[in-house]
Amino acid sequence: MSDLSQELFDLLGPKGWLSAHDSVGSVRDWLDRYGEPPLGIARPATTGEVAAVIGACARAGVPVVPQGGNTGLCGAAVCGRAGSVIVSLSRMNAMGKPDTATGSMTVEAGVVLAALHDALEPHDLIFPLHLGAEGTAQIGGLIGTNAGGSHAARYGMMQDLVLGLEVVLADGSIWNGLRAVQKDNAGYQLRKLFCGGEGTLGIVTRAVLKLFPAPKVRETALLAVPDMDALVAVGSLLRKEAGEFLGGLEFFSDFGLDLALANVEGLAMPLESRAPWYLLVEMTAGSSKVPLSEIMQSCLEDGFGQGIVVDGALAMSDTQRAAFWRLREEQPEGQRLEGPQLKHDISVPPGRLAEFIGEAGNLCQDILGGVRINAFGHLGDGNTHYNLSPPAGHPDFADTAPALATALARLATELGGSFAAEHGLGRSKIALADALRPAAERALMGRIKQALDPQGLLNPGVVLAANTSGTIDRNTPNLL
Amino acid sequence: MSDLSQELFDLLGPKGWLSAHDSVGSVRDWLDRYGEPPLGIARPATTGEVAAVIGACARAGVPVVPQGGNTGLCGAAVCGRAGSVIVSLSRMNAMGKPDTATGSMTVEAGVVLAALHDALEPHDLIFPLHLGAEGTAQIGGLIGTNAGGSHAARYGMMQDLVLGLEVVLADGSIWNGLRAVQKDNAGYQLRKLFCGGEGTLGIVTRAVLKLFPAPKVRETALLAVPDMDALVAVGSLLRKEAGEFLGGLEFFSDFGLDLALANVEGLAMPLESRAPWYLLVEMTAGSSKVPLSEIMQSCLEDGFGQGIVVDGALAMSDTQRAAFWRLREEQPEGQRLEGPQLKHDISVPPGRLAEFIGEAGNLCQDILGGVRINAFGHLGDGNTHYNLSPPAGHPDFADTAPALATALARLATELGGSFAAEHGLGRSKIALADALRPAAERALMGRIKQALDPQGLLNPGVVLAANTSGTIDRNTPNLL
Repeated sequence: MSDLSQELFDLLGPKGWLSAHDSVGSVRDWLDRYGEPPLGIARPATTGEVAAVIGACARAGVPVVPQGGNTGLCGAAVCGRAGSVIVSLSRMNAMGKPDTATGSMTVEAGVVLAALHDALEPHDLIFPLHLGAEGTAQIGGLIGTNAGGSHAARYGMMQDLVLGLEVVLADGSIWNGLRAVQKDNAGYQLRKLFCGGEGTLGIVTRAVLKLFPAPKVRETALLAVPDMDALVAVGSLLRKEAGEFLGGLEFFSDFGLDLALANVEGLAMPLESRAPWYLLVEMTAGSSKVPLSEIMQSCLEDGFGQGIVVDGALAMSDTQRAAFWRLREEQPEGQRLEGPQLKHDISVPPGRLAEFIGEAGNLCQDILGGVRINAFGHLGDGNTHYNLSPPAGHPDFADTAPALATALARLATELGGSFAAEHGLGRSKIALADALRPAAERALMGRIKQALDPQGLLNPGVVLAANTSGTIDRNTPNLL
Repeated sequence: MSDLSQELFDLLGPKGWLSAHDSVGSVRDWLDRYGEPPLGIARPATTGEVAAVIGACARAGVPVVPQGGNTGLCGAAVCGRAGSVIVSLSRMNAMGKPDTATGSMTVEAGVVLAALHDALEPHDLIFPLHLGAEGTAQIGGLIGTNAGGSHAARYGMMQDLVLGLEVVLADGSIWNGLRAVQKDNAGYQLRKLFCGGEGTLGIVTRAVLKLFPAPKVRETALLAVPDMDALVAVGSLLRKEAGEFLGGLEFFSDFGLDLALANVEGLAMPLESRAPWYLLVEMTAGSSKVPLSEIMQSCLEDGFGQGIVVDGALAMSDTQRAAFWRLREEQPEGQRLEGPQLKHDISVPPGRLAEFIGEAGNLCQDILGGVRINAFGHLGDGNTHYNLSPPAGHPDFADTAPALATALARLATELGGSFAAEHGLGRSKIALADALRPAAERALMGRIKQALDPQGLLNPGVVLAANTSGTIDRNTPNLL
């Protein structure tokens, strides 16, 4: 056992310090693309223990990798360098009492998102972040990656939902910024900066989250839409006529529907017609006096009248609602079961989504004729998961993956959007950011990293290339 | 004319470079507490000119103070040191075309907030930031101070309303982050960091702002409320029953009402009863199918039934609505006309507002018996403008101002809130922040400042004491 292993074992005990061997599931990332063997997994039970772990690692010069539910898709939650220490906050999963008058609640970073949803239900409150991995993803990781998901257009991303934070800094000191107020302009907005820091600026241990009253009425529709221009037009119509009620506004394609129906058990298509695109519309309201059904139907009639909706169904029960949502939510699983795939997480201004989809399709076909495109995502914020399967009959992408990723990222950039919309840069998209983002922007990030983590030991090689901080070089052999 | 004056005159021409003598209104701050004579006022017309000005000042080692509408209350927009250069972006007041589908618009930093509101009206869109100074305050200053205002609980503060930014950095280089997407996780959230930087990290030149559909229906009520506990309870009731419709939720006191009625022309009190507190409730909805009047009346009936509302009036016309709002909006003016005053900008978690008001009153009376307290503000986010007038018959505060400010700030901190809620730290609240905020927090801010402005020339002495950056000392004689 190395000196650091012994020190961390002594500090945390047998529940708090696992060898890599004892925690195999934490070593590799979700997509099994990244993850060098760690020295071990630290599982501190308190903020003080987190601080002690970080302090010990800093003294030993050993990198630290914070890991939440390990559901990230860009490799940020596993070791880039063998012998680093993974810090899991799974044992820190306590929740405070929700403050109804304030609309807030303090939680520890290891709380699983779905557990938070469940805990709030008896209080008629919601924490409005929803995404596919919510049964596993933890609050700390969601903050670190500034998660978005399917309700972000209405309620915001994680950075909009965090009022206060407690963070362990690179030297093992603790910043307690656990204030429960929206309005706090006493200096720089540190709480926002740590959202999306991907664990490279500090390790979030606790957060004060913003809560909302639970909706009292809900309407869900699944629409068939003839083309992308129509999809964008339906989005504009709904935004204008249904104002503040729009929750989910999720789209997927006929190809994606085919993949899901073919590969996933128990799905059913409720519409009689097939069309190139489908839109799942969910409206909710906090007052039972709102005639939400009438509002939804009026919007749909307008859509039919304008020819931008060609078929539609309203969910008449919670079971039907869940069935509609599953068609959208099983898009990733349907494609995963189909075989090899390339995932891209793009956002463009919603008004330019049709332009993006059209041009992206041409670019991809030029690079790999016959490539099968499964674009689905969040119309409200223009976030498309633009995922590819190889041409029918082909086993893989035959080395076209980098060209495809670069072309799509470049197009998103040209259209005023992002090639890292809600999944972050992690390890996998640093090269894209270095190539496509202004040098001034990357340099600013490097300066901030250097200022907050001068030793470069917090999740090195994530967000910025590992040599950006000035103390670690890509070519340096592993420290351990 | 100094070398730098000549250089800036040559660069900007006679419209772009004013001597301090030619621009007296820009030298002192709104409250006439701060403002050393500048070398001159630079009025660049383009981002390139801003960059050139900053570059020239950096080479000359002369501090730069960005100034918007100069409506700030903490002294951040005027010179702390004689001979600095004020940079006004008033000439950069162009607005792009609103993108309806995306809900966004690019504007230059010199656009006045009210002009933006006016420009959006024909498009049925709103930019939902509202505050007293909107006829003068500029977008750049509002971003720099992360402005909040009366609609923040529903729509967010400036940091929530900015999608993309263009910023001139300390060395005169330009960061173009003018993306128009909510979801952009390609690295650290720089766009959020510059919101609230108070011009100490860079100078915002353009922004992509988030827009919302204009409401189609609106209801406004003025309520009389028996005590602070009842006020908080009414807030909770409204939040629960009127969900997403709550816009303004503005409170003021009977003392504040007296001040306004006595000192401001043309005000009328629409309620028959007087009560210790009043609450202005405004609900809006994006769909004309929402029975907003019924929802409002039902909430009021509940409030009467519970005894937490003792009187109320509904605005029956836009004229009445404006009259209700004036009672709240003239609170600062009513007090200003009364004579000397102390302003405090406090936020606490809304559920603790009654506790704050109760304890703060005791603290203030202990320090200065008979002090007259005018607390008003935004119930939705717990933001109180806790302003004081001297005891009746006393001409001033007789040196109790620091003790009052410190006691109130300490109490807000203890209750999980902020002593710099929406006005920022500026120059006036640095000492409070240094005393009441964790040292780790202040050190983090110092490191970020040092990283982004190593020469310490961007608005030195704002947010952080001027010597924090390491290169400027409070005791150093003026540079010029």
